Amino acid sequence: MEGGSAAPEELPEIITNKDEMRKWSRAMRCRGKTIALVPTMGYLHQGHLSLVEKAQSLADVVVVSIYVNPGQFSPSEDLSTYPSDFHGDILKLGSVSGCRRVDAVFHPHNLYDYGNIGRKGERDIVEELSEEREKGPPASGVSSCVEEMGAGHETWVKVERLERGLCGKSRPVFFRGVATVVTKLFNIVDPDMAVFGKKDYQQWRVIQRMVRDLDFGIRIVGSDITREQDGLAMSSRNVRLSPGDRGKLSFLSDLFGCLQALSISRSLFQAKSLVERGQTTNCSDLRGTLVQAISGAGGKIDYVEIVDQESLETLGEVDRPVVICIAAWFGNVRLIDNIEISG
Amino acid sequence: MEGGSAAPEELPEIITNKDEMRKWSRAMRCRGKTIALVPTMGYLHQGHLSLVEKAQSLADVVVVSIYVNPGQFSPSEDLSTYPSDFHGDILKLGSVSGCRRVDAVFHPHNLYDYGNIGRKGERDIVEELSEEREKGPPASGVSSCVEEMGAGHETWVKVERLERGLCGKSRPVFFRGVATVVTKLFNIVDPDMAVFGKKDYQQWRVIQRMVRDLDFGIRIVGSDITREQDGLAMSSRNVRLSPGDRGKLSFLSDLFGCLQALSISRSLFQAKSLVERGQTTNCSDLRGTLVQAISGAGGKIDYVEIVDQESLETLGEVDRPVVICIAAWFGNVRLIDNIEISG
Repeated sequence: MEGGSAAPEELPEIITNKDEMRKWSRAMRCRGKTIALVPTMGYLHQGHLSLVEKAQSLADVVVVSIYVNPGQFSPSEDLSTYPSDFHGDILKLGSVSGCRRVDAVFHPHNLYDYGNIGRKGERDIVEELSEEREKGPPASGVSSCVEEMGAGHETWVKVERLERGLCGKSRPVFFRGVATVVTKLFNIVDPDMAVFGKKDYQQWRVIQRMVRDLDFGIRIVGSDITREQDGLAMSSRNVRLSPGDRGKLSFLSDLFGCLQALSISRSLFQAKSLVERGQTTNCSDLRGTLVQAISGAGGKIDYVEIVDQESLETLGEVDRPVVICIAAWFGNVRLIDNIEISG
Repeated sequence: MEGGSAAPEELPEIITNKDEMRKWSRAMRCRGKTIALVPTMGYLHQGHLSLVEKAQSLADVVVVSIYVNPGQFSPSEDLSTYPSDFHGDILKLGSVSGCRRVDAVFHPHNLYDYGNIGRKGERDIVEELSEEREKGPPASGVSSCVEEMGAGHETWVKVERLERGLCGKSRPVFFRGVATVVTKLFNIVDPDMAVFGKKDYQQWRVIQRMVRDLDFGIRIVGSDITREQDGLAMSSRNVRLSPGDRGKLSFLSDLFGCLQALSISRSLFQAKSLVERGQTTNCSDLRGTLVQAISGAGGKIDYVEIVDQESLETLGEVDRPVVICIAAWFGNVRLIDNIEISG
């Protein structure tokens, strides 16, 4: 996995240009190939690779997109510090990893550059931004890093009901940004199917609904959560909980951070077990147990909710297929996790 | 043009099903054909046919969609009385009209039926509607006839800046509805290009911007306004100004209605002439002249604006390519018209 020893034919084709990506897909389609897209923000881990494997099992060719989307980050979030390792990602997607090689990686520089950023002088942009400020906040009341770029992008896809609860409460631009960039990727890559991880459960449901409502001819596949051996759901942000990411005296605090974070998955397994053993179907009781476990381990809870698997509406009883969704802060890292219960 | 005497091979293929439409387009593409889409709400007139001719001159095959989109009407607008004549439309699109026959007409019954309307009992829907009312208005603060249908559609495409002014002020759900249904049609028909009339100038610009921002691989073509001999911009709603649509004693009032309506185009021509002869470049003066002419003829002005052709921002001077846009009520009919001036 390490180093640059892979032969070029073992590595995926890297495409950075929208038109070239379109051409590539059209050529594949003309040859009768089905195309699966796996959208990612890079810094790939085993969770992403499991999505790739799922995609490979379902389609003839697989495109992985690697793009950290400014449209889903608010200016106060961690866009600038989001981890990245493009070279490592490419190696992981090559046949060197022991799997079939991914056919293409779509890695655009800026999906919101419509050719009018470079043409403007700094003064124009400063003037425009001050005009923007005078106009007040946008109609939607929220603003992402894309608005800050001054590129003139102004079209957003909103899945109004599903985006409201859970992560949507604390991240008001997130799902609008995800739905919009996924629409862009769908329009550029034109896949037959796309694979999303169920770790981002609400995101998966939002995209499913968007595809139905906007009549995309694309099958959306949800792929199960990949966990570390100890149960922690894999996430690019986990790196911030791990040794090596900190300075001296880090070992004990890292260990403590990981143990804290484990309280999420452990409490989810425990809750599922409580329901399956028939010990409770009361959502308020379940929620109480979860909140106590995570808070007790030092996590600051964003939300713990037991919701309908499709509508994501909060429930009083586990009387149908539900999913328990959790978001919690451990230090300055926000982690999410969930577990489905058939009910 | 009248009657049902056309041979079947002279008429376009009629497709009502989304999947069949998709298949049809894929088959055409496999045969190397380029596809143009002309989206309409039916009740076709010479203006629509000019869009079809434009499409025929640019692409190998032409699809005309005929669908009155509830998503762009607010519950208080004229969805239920929007004129329709499907049989007449099909004849107009056949080779009987003297032109090349349109290849396919996409005429879906309901683009927002996801299979969950029929499955619900009336009581469920009543309960849901009352739940909806308890939740208050949707996040966007607006609601169209689609929300009233209870179909669960919740994804909307918003072109936030361009949709705000002009018609957007008095019709807050309109452009959201147009952008959304056009996205649906693009995803179903998958055309290489689409032709829009410049009579709906803001709509054309909104769709252009949406296509850029969402990376649709579709060329948007704007087609010039078709006018009656007397200058009136053609519109399906003009029928309400014309003889035959009213009862006895109608001739004089109809004639009066038409004369009133003509004040829009006449004042637009006059304003363009004023600028081109160098008599004024002051937008406030121009606006005053236009407002006076239309009000004097009995029209109730919704807006008269002189705006930048691309950004649609209101201007003080005609110092660049502009478009003068007008919306006015004549009785209970709202008409729009515009004229471009190179500046």
